[in-house]
Amino acid sequence: MAKSDPEALERETGLKLMPKFDSNGLVTAVVTDTRTGLALMLAYMNEEALTLSVTTGEAHFYSRSRAEIWHKGGTSGNVLSIDEIRIDCDQDAIWVSATPKGHGAACHTGQKSCFYRRIVEKDGEIVLEHTGEKPLFDPKDVY
Amino acid sequence: MAKSDPEALERETGLKLMPKFDSNGLVTAVVTDTRTGLALMLAYMNEEALTLSVTTGEAHFYSRSRAEIWHKGGTSGNVLSIDEIRIDCDQDAIWVSATPKGHGAACHTGQKSCFYRRIVEKDGEIVLEHTGEKPLFDPKDVY
Repeated sequence: MAKSDPEALERETGLKLMPKFDSNGLVTAVVTDTRTGLALMLAYMNEEALTLSVTTGEAHFYSRSRAEIWHKGGTSGNVLSIDEIRIDCDQDAIWVSATPKGHGAACHTGQKSCFYRRIVEKDGEIVLEHTGEKPLFDPKDVY
Repeated sequence: MAKSDPEALERETGLKLMPKFDSNGLVTAVVTDTRTGLALMLAYMNEEALTLSVTTGEAHFYSRSRAEIWHKGGTSGNVLSIDEIRIDCDQDAIWVSATPKGHGAACHTGQKSCFYRRIVEKDGEIVLEHTGEKPLFDPKDVY
């Protein structure tokens, strides 16, 4: 891979930001909670959202459903204050380590994390199991 | 969203596994290190890779470049032993909390994590900065 392709090699080893946006101009971004390591959410950034995230210190994404920049928490107050932001080896994924503000909930359901259900095998079937954590806010009161 | 769509509501609140695969039959999967919370890698799973991950307890992905199931660490020995696997609110993203085996490195570069560079603002420019961690193996010896 990188061995025979100078651009891929620079992307993998260099210190130049050269994100590999997909055909829609997006890279995947995952957010984890700096204090607990809990994965909070997964979303997408375009170039503007990435720049805004780095320059403002608050997570910005690109909303595919609304086709616009999405300042996470802009409505609910649950902004994600960025502690560190990293990019992966082939520069097509972003990792944001953040501290949730407001209610401390990253999910629109009121849950702390969007990942509130485990995938488990039960009686030979693969099903979901709720972690049992209670929502931190009632979406009806916020949106 | 979920309010007016019974299937979306079941997907968000139910205990039935109903992943929202994209047009290529894939969902995004992020792996973090159970012990440290470090984001290790981001990849894709098709239905078979997801099932194999749950049933074997080792992370399996779908390699888009090789168009085949990819048992992570099958070649290098650096398998990811799954401690917990979760799905997000709209069931289009998977979170794997895992313990890296072998060299303890998840990245093909030998780094513990694929996310070995920070994105930082320096003199008004957005650039990368290496975390300074040393690779745990030499890719030349392994692949």
